Amino acid sequence: MAVHFKHVAIIGVGLIGGSLGMVLRRKALADQVVGVGRRVENLRTAVDLGAIDRYVGDPKDGVRGADLVVLATPVDTYLDHLKDWAHCLAPGAIVTDVGSVKGVLVEQSEAAMPPGVHFIGAHPIAGNEKTGVAAGSDQLFRGARCILTPTRHTNLGALERVKQLWEETGSILLTMDPHLHDQILGAVSHLPHVVAFALMIALADLRDHEIPSLDLAGHSGGGLRDTTRIAASSSEMWRDIFLWNRDNLVSFIDRFERALEELKHLIKAGDAAGIEKAIERAKAEREKLNARTPMST
Amino acid sequence: MAVHFKHVAIIGVGLIGGSLGMVLRRKALADQVVGVGRRVENLRTAVDLGAIDRYVGDPKDGVRGADLVVLATPVDTYLDHLKDWAHCLAPGAIVTDVGSVKGVLVEQSEAAMPPGVHFIGAHPIAGNEKTGVAAGSDQLFRGARCILTPTRHTNLGALERVKQLWEETGSILLTMDPHLHDQILGAVSHLPHVVAFALMIALADLRDHEIPSLDLAGHSGGGLRDTTRIAASSSEMWRDIFLWNRDNLVSFIDRFERALEELKHLIKAGDAAGIEKAIERAKAEREKLNARTPMST
Repeated sequence: MAVHFKHVAIIGVGLIGGSLGMVLRRKALADQVVGVGRRVENLRTAVDLGAIDRYVGDPKDGVRGADLVVLATPVDTYLDHLKDWAHCLAPGAIVTDVGSVKGVLVEQSEAAMPPGVHFIGAHPIAGNEKTGVAAGSDQLFRGARCILTPTRHTNLGALERVKQLWEETGSILLTMDPHLHDQILGAVSHLPHVVAFALMIALADLRDHEIPSLDLAGHSGGGLRDTTRIAASSSEMWRDIFLWNRDNLVSFIDRFERALEELKHLIKAGDAAGIEKAIERAKAEREKLNARTPMST
Repeated sequence: MAVHFKHVAIIGVGLIGGSLGMVLRRKALADQVVGVGRRVENLRTAVDLGAIDRYVGDPKDGVRGADLVVLATPVDTYLDHLKDWAHCLAPGAIVTDVGSVKGVLVEQSEAAMPPGVHFIGAHPIAGNEKTGVAAGSDQLFRGARCILTPTRHTNLGALERVKQLWEETGSILLTMDPHLHDQILGAVSHLPHVVAFALMIALADLRDHEIPSLDLAGHSGGGLRDTTRIAASSSEMWRDIFLWNRDNLVSFIDRFERALEELKHLIKAGDAAGIEKAIERAKAEREKLNARTPMST
């Protein structure tokens, strides 16, 4: 029998929260899904799209009586949120999230739970540079990875229920330590975002200061568009990810800078064999990525 | 009336040379298209796919009597090629190319022409990380930009004929100075390739030296795949592009490094407002790229 909740509260009904609501409602996995948010217009859209049954403005009203609360707001807001309404939850309730960073955020969220309330960290690696419930879909998670990040404090029954919920979305489940999550996502997702943002900034600088006739849209091709697609992502979300995964990220940027510096020196020195060897390595590693089903983001 | 050639020789029947041959033959723009190459197997495929009528091993045999020669070999081979067979061409013949760098390469190629033979630099910005005539298509150039790079020595009649040829492929024609071409392509294409190669190398280094459980294929999503798609490009071709556009590229990498360094410092300092502002700028510039039809690479 499919996992079932009586009362689900979704805090932050955006692309991810809204899409999860659509799955919950379409598959009747919950008696009711209540949306909580600040923008009434967005919440109305969420009702129209079938992402939630109803909405409230005050999270306390939304979570009271909930057996599952999904935190789908920017990660930087978690602790304020939990301070505001976690005490309204009854023992046995589960709080889960969809944030792109875990690590200390999971530790702090766990510590903010009242007695008997369980926190389960989750990171569905879905979505793209689009935002808002209007871009949502109950198919958003299909085939995408979802990483659960239990700790030694995790209640196994609660973990199992959250796991079953994400299985219902069509996600492929992975489980790992919250700190390892931040290392791995720092490498495969956060670092590429930093690089894509810096590339767009550098190209704008080149146009503004060095090549006045450079027309980035008119002169560029699919290569630049692909390479920088993720540079169109939400600045609020990525600001928070960068801040919450700061130490890993700075260390990974250092490593990228070393790789880039080496390539630059080979080019500067006109070292044809060295350049070719470096490209061959990059190419071989890139081709290995094609061997498996991609995650969505 | 469409442009027409009696005898076209294509030196290097790969993705670009082969696709151009397919257009020439399908649209009957030439009485005969002769392929020149080193690998007989590839040349046989080119005949089977209708990219060329016949092939020869010695370029001198291929170009003798040609009114159009298309140089579609790696740019590093141009001068050796021209030295080998340019003297076989009769006055009035046109030599054109499809190389991704122009600048001094165009100057040197012009200088290598015998009296009355015209060199016209061309760069169809088409193709992708695939190589070989088997990946070719007479639709490859449709909607893609093709940049012609005339100089003050250029014969205008020859330029017009090459222009008409590329118009027949469905390309959108741009004309610019060969040195400006290398600045612009250095920015929108060569720099992103350097960045994508360096990113794949840095991620492999991270896996090999820092995060042993990092599974680049299993843990990454569409974001990394898009960002690094061009890292699977031909190492021979990109080695040559990097070498031939070395000065621009080193200067552009410097600028990218400065943009990256600034972003890193904002992250290190935990400067939320500064990070957000930088991302907002990158995002705004990236969104402008969506305003126009992309080129193919």
